Amino acid sequence: MSVMPKKKATAKRASKSPASLLLFADTHKSADQLYVGGFNVPDAFLSFKKGRKWYALLNQLEYARALKESRFDEVLQLEAWLEQTREKFQRAKVGYAELVATIASVFEIGSFKVPADFPSALAFKLVELGVEIDVCDGSIFPSREIKTEDELAMIREGNRCSAKGIRAAEKAIRRSVVKQGKLYLDEKLLTSERLRSIIEVACLEAGSLSMDTIAAGGDQACDPHCAGHGPLRANELIIVDVFPRVSKTGYYGDMTRTFLKGKASEAQKGIVDAVFKAQQGAIKKVKTGVNGKDVHGFVLDTFSSLGYETRRTDSGAEGFIHGTGHGLGLEVHEAPRVSIVSNKLRRNAVVTIEPGLYYPGVGGCRIEDVVAVRDDGAEMLSNCHYRWQLR
Amino acid sequence: MSVMPKKKATAKRASKSPASLLLFADTHKSADQLYVGGFNVPDAFLSFKKGRKWYALLNQLEYARALKESRFDEVLQLEAWLEQTREKFQRAKVGYAELVATIASVFEIGSFKVPADFPSALAFKLVELGVEIDVCDGSIFPSREIKTEDELAMIREGNRCSAKGIRAAEKAIRRSVVKQGKLYLDEKLLTSERLRSIIEVACLEAGSLSMDTIAAGGDQACDPHCAGHGPLRANELIIVDVFPRVSKTGYYGDMTRTFLKGKASEAQKGIVDAVFKAQQGAIKKVKTGVNGKDVHGFVLDTFSSLGYETRRTDSGAEGFIHGTGHGLGLEVHEAPRVSIVSNKLRRNAVVTIEPGLYYPGVGGCRIEDVVAVRDDGAEMLSNCHYRWQLR
Repeated sequence: MSVMPKKKATAKRASKSPASLLLFADTHKSADQLYVGGFNVPDAFLSFKKGRKWYALLNQLEYARALKESRFDEVLQLEAWLEQTREKFQRAKVGYAELVATIASVFEIGSFKVPADFPSALAFKLVELGVEIDVCDGSIFPSREIKTEDELAMIREGNRCSAKGIRAAEKAIRRSVVKQGKLYLDEKLLTSERLRSIIEVACLEAGSLSMDTIAAGGDQACDPHCAGHGPLRANELIIVDVFPRVSKTGYYGDMTRTFLKGKASEAQKGIVDAVFKAQQGAIKKVKTGVNGKDVHGFVLDTFSSLGYETRRTDSGAEGFIHGTGHGLGLEVHEAPRVSIVSNKLRRNAVVTIEPGLYYPGVGGCRIEDVVAVRDDGAEMLSNCHYRWQLR
Repeated sequence: MSVMPKKKATAKRASKSPASLLLFADTHKSADQLYVGGFNVPDAFLSFKKGRKWYALLNQLEYARALKESRFDEVLQLEAWLEQTREKFQRAKVGYAELVATIASVFEIGSFKVPADFPSALAFKLVELGVEIDVCDGSIFPSREIKTEDELAMIREGNRCSAKGIRAAEKAIRRSVVKQGKLYLDEKLLTSERLRSIIEVACLEAGSLSMDTIAAGGDQACDPHCAGHGPLRANELIIVDVFPRVSKTGYYGDMTRTFLKGKASEAQKGIVDAVFKAQQGAIKKVKTGVNGKDVHGFVLDTFSSLGYETRRTDSGAEGFIHGTGHGLGLEVHEAPRVSIVSNKLRRNAVVTIEPGLYYPGVGGCRIEDVVAVRDDGAEMLSNCHYRWQLR
């Protein structure tokens, strides 16, 4: 029996009856699992779809809460199904593979479609037990790319939280005073760590958790994923990138602004102007049916026409060294991409638009907003001003 | 070629030369990836071990930071390796499977051992390309169960953060006043949501992120994973469970206390006394070589001798409805378990000890600390008093 992804076979089956989907994950690691059930479960559990109904197998610790809070059509008691599995296999020790085999037989499911990140150990054991699985190459829920109006509202709420974080950072930088080139807030050094904490408290108070928040100044910011550490300084660009997860819904916001306390050099003004121009222009390019690659191409052209080159260096790269944007929803990075890869933007998809320029010696600048793809253009889902020079 | 886990074959190979391990994950979803590289990468990337050296393949966005911050012995440039892979396969479009095949050929690696949660899509494509993989059934890093003294210090730090959260909750409940049965803090209702926010801000200010914090009162707390919602009330048990992740290191703390504002009933006093007795007794049972099952058994016996029964009900279950504890480290739940499953506690493993009793109508109580398994008994890694009746 083949264990390879069988695209044709799946397509054929799908035309007869909807595929039976199978997930095994917790809701922190798997946005798919959260998307299906709509409630948080910290440990991996099984869920599956038969016909139009979604089922979850949960232990007694989660069972009652699942009945009350989840969107599953039916919640099965894990302990009872384990019992039944032990009887079927005539042994005391059974695992999730045997459990799935029992379900397949009781629910008369011939084959399960599983997501690309389905755990290999379980997948291979299922194959060993003769349970046919069909590993999805792309997303198991292409519908996640297209947001409902409810989801758009939740992402707007995520960006309301991002903006709270950005504004808290702006206020702290604005209120700080400069002593010997370093920023001090309320008599204490304003470090990247402290600024990050100020941002994260603001996000928390707005109802969201911001992880891996970026508050990086000077050359540190030339590494777009460097979180920043140590004292923040006057006259250097400070990138603040905030992507909190709304605790209630699991949906994210994502916003970046670049600030500078003191006096900007011509080189710094140059890159901020270029990034702002590229970002605002790219947002105007977004609408239903446009290719993300072309939006990214617009940014590349803008930078190149302004003389900003991208090149590999000994320690990495400089210039515009990442994609223009990415999808946003129950994950910070999801489909579609706005990058060198061809990727048509579909109606009601949500993407970030976040060009940046990074030149060690000058610093880094990134400006990011979130938009919904609509037929008549981009609809802004984030809202915050673009003033960057703080006196 | 077999794609099944081949335990014997692996054991044989291991005696000749160490197995080549392969990971493909981001560091949020995979604690293994964080354990190996010691630095955060938000998007999935490849890492592998050949001989004694660990390699990572990172794109230009992460490359420079990896050189500076990671523990990898060597960082390879993803773009250059993709280029080489395109040449090898003579086509423009290649993916991670082809990339791994290229690595296997250049580094002369005959077979890769991958973790249980290695993504199926990549695993099956590797098999298709003729790259032999060996899916690990248990943990790919059994060493993660045994903590170094440095790791113990990081977990102690995690618990210092938990204690900050618990203490903030205690203070809020203590300072609150009762009006018509409900708690008010500073003239405003003290809800589960508000108490959770107070806890999470305290954790954040201590340098950690607390997700899924539990602050649940009354019957809500009878669902051990219910986070709690709505007003908190006088004379009801309030479970506060705080498991923050230290932002700098990725290690967790985990602590639970149960509080009551007002006057406790005899039934409430009974379950708190029983849980406290079981918890303190269970901690005394922990030492190197003891079976977690026996520690759990002690808790079961204690409850049963005190007349507290566990039973399944229509809406779930009541009594002692979860395990006694779990390992703690780079994940909130990791090996070993302290439960009905046989699981010997090894020297320098770290486990929570957290019995609880849950009876709708009376409420729930759980008390949790974290200990290191030592030859002469449990060493406490968490520290907070057990007073629970707050006037």
